[in-house]
Amino acid sequence: MTPESLFRSANRILLITHIAPDGDAIGGLLGLGKALRAAGKQVTLSCSDPAPLRFAYLPGCADIVRQVTGPFDLIASLDCSDLRRVGPIYRADEWRDVPLLNIDHHVTNTRFGAHNWVAPEYVATSEMALDLCDRLGLPLDADIATCLLYGIIGDTLGLRTDNVTPALMSKVMRLMQAGASLAGIMDQLFGRRPFNLLRAWERTLATMRLEEGVVWAFLTRQARQEIGWSITDLPGLSNFLLSAEEANLSAVLVEKDDGQVEVSMRARPPHDVSGVALALGGGGHPQAAGCTIDGPLNVAVEQVVASLKKSPSQQTYNLAD
Amino acid sequence: MTPESLFRSANRILLITHIAPDGDAIGGLLGLGKALRAAGKQVTLSCSDPAPLRFAYLPGCADIVRQVTGPFDLIASLDCSDLRRVGPIYRADEWRDVPLLNIDHHVTNTRFGAHNWVAPEYVATSEMALDLCDRLGLPLDADIATCLLYGIIGDTLGLRTDNVTPALMSKVMRLMQAGASLAGIMDQLFGRRPFNLLRAWERTLATMRLEEGVVWAFLTRQARQEIGWSITDLPGLSNFLLSAEEANLSAVLVEKDDGQVEVSMRARPPHDVSGVALALGGGGHPQAAGCTIDGPLNVAVEQVVASLKKSPSQQTYNLAD
Repeated sequence: MTPESLFRSANRILLITHIAPDGDAIGGLLGLGKALRAAGKQVTLSCSDPAPLRFAYLPGCADIVRQVTGPFDLIASLDCSDLRRVGPIYRADEWRDVPLLNIDHHVTNTRFGAHNWVAPEYVATSEMALDLCDRLGLPLDADIATCLLYGIIGDTLGLRTDNVTPALMSKVMRLMQAGASLAGIMDQLFGRRPFNLLRAWERTLATMRLEEGVVWAFLTRQARQEIGWSITDLPGLSNFLLSAEEANLSAVLVEKDDGQVEVSMRARPPHDVSGVALALGGGGHPQAAGCTIDGPLNVAVEQVVASLKKSPSQQTYNLAD
Repeated sequence: MTPESLFRSANRILLITHIAPDGDAIGGLLGLGKALRAAGKQVTLSCSDPAPLRFAYLPGCADIVRQVTGPFDLIASLDCSDLRRVGPIYRADEWRDVPLLNIDHHVTNTRFGAHNWVAPEYVATSEMALDLCDRLGLPLDADIATCLLYGIIGDTLGLRTDNVTPALMSKVMRLMQAGASLAGIMDQLFGRRPFNLLRAWERTLATMRLEEGVVWAFLTRQARQEIGWSITDLPGLSNFLLSAEEANLSAVLVEKDDGQVEVSMRARPPHDVSGVALALGGGGHPQAAGCTIDGPLNVAVEQVVASLKKSPSQQTYNLAD
């Protein structure tokens, strides 16, 4: 059965997006949910984790629930590459007779659904949701368009990834014409940081080094406390380090309150950091991966930098140079 | 006379873009120049300053000259808001009988030409060049499209400014279809920096301050020398400063070798820095403007910060708070 026929024949629909949701997860969930509701469907929007505060820009974000009660005619997971990412909200035993439709664009998807619409040629699950709305004949309004464009802009890093085609731009244009503010979404996703985060960048950049194609920097617990940056996430900084033309790999290390060290790594294609992350007990994608390792920080820095310097793609590169 | 009729009746054409050229200046110059040459015109591409190395991505960048010999039937300045920005390449006395066509999208343009096509509704002079090609019936090829898209992406900060409309997206789509690589251009403009520039960010961020909605930072001549950053441009940094949620206005000041100070300012809409820039002898757009003022640096910093704090839009904001 096609995804659209499943949605057509269902009335009570449960949509689930993935744990630790990103902009595409929340945008696709809200956009598709609103479009289906406008068509008269009873739709429950859910996520096992609470939606981060930064997504409050999206209309309807408060509608997302963490506990659901059936019955349902159809359950669709959105942007989940495996069942673990769907999270505990999905009760397999109780819902064994309800078709599970897996809608996702990740190439690593495990096809865990009874029905699987897995399409890595889409830049975002929100783009799949837009196509689904079209196939179902569901009209767009400004709220739906805003949610779907938010997901597309998020997963393409602001239309900067190499899967942004003229056909995608045409969809972006349609969403803008339906009332989504591209500038507003870009600003929400990339143009706003707490001033303390700028201070955290400053303190981290002060430790920056570049050797053998690897650029790295770290932030101590003490520096975090001095500038009032309580969390260990420094969004965007490992990408910024990788923008150094002389670098193929980058790493940002942040010392946590308990002394462990969070490591965020990036690679410029065709280089790869997923192997190093995996070997250090973490995981991720070839171009973006991470792990959490034991301190002390100076030892962790040595360990990560040494691993990156001797990673296979880096060795190949150095030989080719 | 319309710009297109001036170009139609001219054969020997001198195109001049502005001193300290940015991506739109070089992109528009090369794109329009190539299109006119393909139509059989004799076109000289010029700029009083050398094109920075980072523009070597653009096909034909090496064709831009700093010394020109006539005769010419038409001289067109591109992206120059005043005659000073045209630079010494324009010899007013010698060329007094040659029509000067001023093509620009800056709202602060002084209309210094014999003919003036000044259109702030365009996001970039490169977008004006695209429309001019259309009006003249000049076809696009991949090189022309690459240059024009580079200018558009540069001046919209990667399609992030609030003047990016569905109509502009349709032009972006056309340029992609003609062979321009959006991802390649995005990477060139925003994904690659010399490592020394990252060091320059670090040194500049170390001086960062936030007061009354104004965030600013500066880079001394000595710091530039220590890190080997010989030029005074710090692309992207004033935008980064403005990403502080607590800020409405930002400024980056860089001390030149001769002791003068280059100032780059940014405003979050609806705030405006063009008035401050103009009052300090510079120019630009409401959201992005600049000027060059006398040193010493510490006095320049005080002057700029004081001007920004008391600028009308900032006052309105502070009252509204």
